[in-house]
Order: sequence, then C-alpha cells, then structure tokens
Amino acid sequence: MIVTCVKVYVKKEHIDDFIKATIENHRNSVKEPGNLRFDVLQSIQNPAEFTLYEAYRTDGDAAAHKETAHYAVWRDTVASWMDKPREGVPHRVIAPLDEGGW
Amino acid sequence: MIVTCVKVYVKKEHIDDFIKATIENHRNSVKEPGNLRFDVLQSIQNPAEFTLYEAYRTDGDAAAHKETAHYAVWRDTVASWMDKPREGVPHRVIAPLDEGGW
Repeated sequence: MIVTCVKVYVKKEHIDDFIKATIENHRNSVKEPGNLRFDVLQSIQNPAEFTLYEAYRTDGDAAAHKETAHYAVWRDTVASWMDKPREGVPHRVIAPLDEGGW
Repeated sequence: MIVTCVKVYVKKEHIDDFIKATIENHRNSVKEPGNLRFDVLQSIQNPAEFTLYEAYRTDGDAAAHKETAHYAVWRDTVASWMDKPREGVPHRVIAPLDEGGW
C-alpha cells in the first residue's frame, strides 16, 4: 500500500471553486479499482490550505490515478487557483496493514 | 469530523523503537469509541519522518484521545526519540462526508 499526502495551497478567492472541483475528483477517484481512500481535508487554522490523502493498493495504482481523465480535468481546472506548487509526500503504511482496515 | 495530521520526526537510531510503540498506540486508539481512523505512515523519501492520520467523529473525541492511558504511555515512551517537536494540523473534512466512508 502507498499513501500520498498532498498539501495544496489555494488562492483565497478560489477556495469555494477548489472545493467543488476537488469533491468531483474525490467522487471519481474512489471508484478507481486500486484506490483505498481519497480524503479531502481543509486546514482549520488556514482554510486556504488543503490536504489530499490518497491511498492506493500499489505504486502502479497510484501512478494510474495520474493517467485518468478525471485527474487531468481536475489538474487543469485548479491550475490557475494554486497559490504555490502542491507538495506530495509518498508514504509506506505501518498500520493498519490488513486491507480490511482501509 | 476532525482529522489531525501529525508529522513526527524521529532520531534515526530509534526508528524501529518508534514503529513498535506507535503500532501499539494505533491498536489501542482505533478502539476508542469516537475514533474513525488512526493510520501510521512512514515517508518513503525520509524513513525518519512519520505521519499519524488521526480521524475522530468530534472535537471532543479528538481531545479525549489525549486523556487515554495508551496515549500517555506512547507520549512518554517516544519522548526521547523525537528529533524535533511534532507538528499537528487539525482539518475539517470536505470528503467523504458520510460516516460510512470512514
């Protein structure tokens, strides 16, 4: 399993636009066969900062996400709303290790 | 729902100790009545950096975690293994909003 935590910095005036586009990305991403989770979170302290929590069964499944049409639409839609580049950090899972925990 | 992403910086010589203690914390934390997830992740690029993904139904449930015996044991056990202070960022959930998605 691989979990990529992606920190996203959004221009304040586009927070609502970003949320709408990212909910759509979430809805499609969780349908990918290798997806385990695709959580969308907003920082309470700074509402312009978001975290995407993208869990996949394999490295290949995580890579396949970036080949989907919904990813391409999301990426292009939000591009001009970014305040600075996204930061994605891939992780291996320590716990839970059983797939039923995902 | 509230999700706190906690970034943890561990001294290299205590990575294995930290993993062992944190798996124990995970096992107990997921049994808390208000807990939704308590994932333990290790950065692939820097194995001394960990992320705890702590999801709770309410702010009160998240606060109650810090009153548990297993949290106190974990906190005290890992204290001397920290390379620098932990960074916890609380988030509100944008998606999924249905509790069945957690």
